[in-house]
Amino acid sequence: MSKLDASVQKLLQGKNFAFVSTVNGDGSPHVAPTWIDTDGDNVLVNTNVGTVKRRNMKRDPRVTLALTEQTNPYNLVIIRGRVVEEISGPKATDQLDRLAKRYMGVEEFPDRKLASKQVTLRIKPERVFTRKA
Amino acid sequence: MSKLDASVQKLLQGKNFAFVSTVNGDGSPHVAPTWIDTDGDNVLVNTNVGTVKRRNMKRDPRVTLALTEQTNPYNLVIIRGRVVEEISGPKATDQLDRLAKRYMGVEEFPDRKLASKQVTLRIKPERVFTRKA
Repeated sequence: MSKLDASVQKLLQGKNFAFVSTVNGDGSPHVAPTWIDTDGDNVLVNTNVGTVKRRNMKRDPRVTLALTEQTNPYNLVIIRGRVVEEISGPKATDQLDRLAKRYMGVEEFPDRKLASKQVTLRIKPERVFTRKA
Repeated sequence: MSKLDASVQKLLQGKNFAFVSTVNGDGSPHVAPTWIDTDGDNVLVNTNVGTVKRRNMKRDPRVTLALTEQTNPYNLVIIRGRVVEEISGPKATDQLDRLAKRYMGVEEFPDRKLASKQVTLRIKPERVFTRKA
């Protein structure tokens, strides 16, 4: 049985943007919008190896992300969790291509050079807060 | 002359939600969506005295917020800054009422008890990143 509620999974599988918050090396907060995904139990963030958020998560695996439904911004989920795995190589590129299909309506992510440098970060939720509009 | 570009001010004055990121007492990241405003030079966040983000900003004034345009989520601004002032009392309530008009289309914020416990946090931008879709 999946650890994430069906309503939360639906938000994570929709054409919605997650605002992923991490902590910088100097202790200041960082936040950036990203495409988002789930395997049913965990949140999946696909990001380039060179991004600030990936560097921050390497240093401190604690992540909090907030997501509102694109068609109804009062429908909200906030997830606190921890990065438990980083996946690179073809599996990460495949996941990016699935996201490109969902968000861009294309068969694969257009920039193949960029696509080859993506990683999938698996985030295990520790607390989930939802507000239904 | 205003310190924030016209395009950034427009995003901050639209019916858009800002994802405000702060750092918790245990060093983990916090993020929450909020209504947003500007005085032309600074970002204004109206929040209840009891919220986690306000408590976090009292401890550490560093804030990063990301905002995408509701009608075009690829139109993005990310602002790093610092809380330089907290305003309470009628001025904060008035600002909340202006936000309620913009976001809810009402003359004043419906919950007057809650409205009386709001504060306006003035955030001075230190870095502004924009991506135009």
